[in-house]
Amino acid sequence: MKIRLYNATILDLNSGYDIRTGEVIVSDGLIEKVIYDKDKVSYTEVPDREINCHGNLLMRGFNNAHTHSAMTFLRSLADDKPTPLWLKEDIFPNEAKLTDDDIADFQKLAIMEYVSGGTVSAMDMYLRPDVTARVFADAGMRAVIVSGLNDFTSSLEQLQDEYKRLNALDPLISYMVGFHAEYTCSREKLQRLSEIAHVLKCPVFCHLSETRSEVEECITRNGSTPLKFLDMLGMFDNGGGIYHGVHLTDEEINIAADKGIHVVINSGSNCKLASGIAPLKKLFDHKVKLALGTDGPASNNSLNMFKEMYLTSVLCKLAEDDAACMDASFILDMAIKGSASCMGLEDSGLIAPGKPADIVMMDLNKPNMQPLNNIVKNIVYAGSVSNVIMTMVAGKILYMNGEFDLGFDPEEMIARCNTRTKRIVSGSI
Amino acid sequence: MKIRLYNATILDLNSGYDIRTGEVIVSDGLIEKVIYDKDKVSYTEVPDREINCHGNLLMRGFNNAHTHSAMTFLRSLADDKPTPLWLKEDIFPNEAKLTDDDIADFQKLAIMEYVSGGTVSAMDMYLRPDVTARVFADAGMRAVIVSGLNDFTSSLEQLQDEYKRLNALDPLISYMVGFHAEYTCSREKLQRLSEIAHVLKCPVFCHLSETRSEVEECITRNGSTPLKFLDMLGMFDNGGGIYHGVHLTDEEINIAADKGIHVVINSGSNCKLASGIAPLKKLFDHKVKLALGTDGPASNNSLNMFKEMYLTSVLCKLAEDDAACMDASFILDMAIKGSASCMGLEDSGLIAPGKPADIVMMDLNKPNMQPLNNIVKNIVYAGSVSNVIMTMVAGKILYMNGEFDLGFDPEEMIARCNTRTKRIVSGSI
Repeated sequence: MKIRLYNATILDLNSGYDIRTGEVIVSDGLIEKVIYDKDKVSYTEVPDREINCHGNLLMRGFNNAHTHSAMTFLRSLADDKPTPLWLKEDIFPNEAKLTDDDIADFQKLAIMEYVSGGTVSAMDMYLRPDVTARVFADAGMRAVIVSGLNDFTSSLEQLQDEYKRLNALDPLISYMVGFHAEYTCSREKLQRLSEIAHVLKCPVFCHLSETRSEVEECITRNGSTPLKFLDMLGMFDNGGGIYHGVHLTDEEINIAADKGIHVVINSGSNCKLASGIAPLKKLFDHKVKLALGTDGPASNNSLNMFKEMYLTSVLCKLAEDDAACMDASFILDMAIKGSASCMGLEDSGLIAPGKPADIVMMDLNKPNMQPLNNIVKNIVYAGSVSNVIMTMVAGKILYMNGEFDLGFDPEEMIARCNTRTKRIVSGSI
Repeated sequence: MKIRLYNATILDLNSGYDIRTGEVIVSDGLIEKVIYDKDKVSYTEVPDREINCHGNLLMRGFNNAHTHSAMTFLRSLADDKPTPLWLKEDIFPNEAKLTDDDIADFQKLAIMEYVSGGTVSAMDMYLRPDVTARVFADAGMRAVIVSGLNDFTSSLEQLQDEYKRLNALDPLISYMVGFHAEYTCSREKLQRLSEIAHVLKCPVFCHLSETRSEVEECITRNGSTPLKFLDMLGMFDNGGGIYHGVHLTDEEINIAADKGIHVVINSGSNCKLASGIAPLKKLFDHKVKLALGTDGPASNNSLNMFKEMYLTSVLCKLAEDDAACMDASFILDMAIKGSASCMGLEDSGLIAPGKPADIVMMDLNKPNMQPLNNIVKNIVYAGSVSNVIMTMVAGKILYMNGEFDLGFDPEEMIARCNTRTKRIVSGSI
């Protein structure tokens, strides 16, 4: 399938955020050719499909570097209550009732939200990696599945088995080694995981320093803050990533920089659960690798990377008491290139031949994007999912003008999700 | 024009946030009838137009209680820089070049953004009240024009003249007395304004306590914090409202409560300019009247009440270090009822006979709104302008399914706004 996207404005995240008009030809999952108007060259082949972009913007799509997709069923179920109660009364008991089919449908709902919001890939940690990997692959969305190893629902053997199997499943899918968090894994399990990571020579991912109490409890348990403790176990000797990173110490920020550990900022979740504001500026100044993710819909409540970019940007300005502390272009960079790098995906952000055709078309003609003083700042500070016209992953259009092409019927699936939610959370609707 | 909106889910902001299915009949700018399915009554008249809501939500639209609409031309022009520089280098010099026609077109762009985002009314303070009032009236949008009295561009005579003229201009338009800020008006002018407000028996509106330096300078100048100082002049003896209110003292919060002064929260602007977080919980606990506004697009950068609701909610949770400190329903209340009350509009939030037909239809079938665990929390925490299907003001549909009916051609107007912006800010595009 060869698709020609013509009459476009093209945003290249490299080379000084160049914005030029032209056309993009996509073939076999990759960008085949980019022809800029200024070069005055015509495309002479006959593509299978031609799409007039009407001057709208083509750019690489968002990569969501931390999520639990299937938690859509918990969206808006339990908000505005203290986090420990939220976990104990609403999250854990309801998750215990999930079947594989529930997870598959709830995840499909998330995929609709991702692609209609310009997100082309997700780094997902949830209860059934096999189910999650299959559903992403079948829908045509790119995903990195991360094991959520813990003392209760998964084992090291399962993890090693999944590592082999799921990395071979589908070109769109990869599998990374991860554990839920320091506080849900015994020291022995963490030690063995670190050994496995050394054998596999792979990075490791986990939730870390999300809340103050988590850090305090880790100090009580291990005599050290979480990242320092895990680093002493050799956990990040091949790199890796941490989700949240709200309460990192200066020493830990230096460890993150030295070990090349990605810090995934999850502002929406950190706000909703009143966890705090991650020290973005300090991480940036220490050249720590930075990525962006929504976290799951139970703690966000949406899977909206526009919202996440905006919130991350303004929280940084507020926390630093400095309107000038972070440029919008770096925030956009985090959401596309930074996250891709964290996820082990091709990370150039380029619209260029040979690069993955993971492209979104953004409507520049909606009032929130006008006038065109600065397209990048418009996207970060004024953009919204209403600006997403098209989302393409690996050369296939998964969403366009409100219509989905994900291998399932959206209306039926939404109806099924409500029925399943009713069963699980009786009396909630 | 009689319009029947059937097959709807209806959200009534009173009576315990009732959500029921039924239909709404709109006639002569007002809601004529609401028929709930449970009542098993049929509507027998023949309306001029029938709209199938497909189960989607009808609710009263958002009222934006503080904005400078025509500042769209400055959107994304100068971000990520210190506020004093931003004002001196970008805002003031460019505003000085504005013609009345510029203001009219830039405001039309804002009106497109309002109505496509579910906003039915705006409280607008800008340079040419006559132009602003006329443009809102011609577009069919409800507006409260507030004078921005200051020592440089307007006079008390002009204000009194406008008060008479603009309050008689059009049923959609009202005019309120206001001044820009304490720091842009001499003490004498403020004293005379207070006297005029006593004669007119009218509330007074202004920017107040937006930044820490503003408060400190007021103390140096007047020996008192701004709200206390103005209260001593009798400025709020007939009530009124203050925009921002970020750095209010406890004493001032008590004054606001006693005098019935509305505090309009402008979270997006306060974040972008790193002004701080307004003490929402404390204001709420002291029963201060609360409203919500975006501020202008130069300091926001959008006019998106979903973003404003979400941000206001999560900033409160962060500032209070308490995920449970504020319920989503109160935030929605602020954006609809609280703002209407501040603006002197009918404020019940009811979809009921005799109430203004200022109604939006929200798409409940988009993935971000599913499952339907809690529609109000979905709107506040996961909602976006992409959920707005229709916006009706005074019974006229101004926006529906991406199409505008505002008395001007949207494409031509966007083109004109870019041309005008280029002229004003040469070299910016």
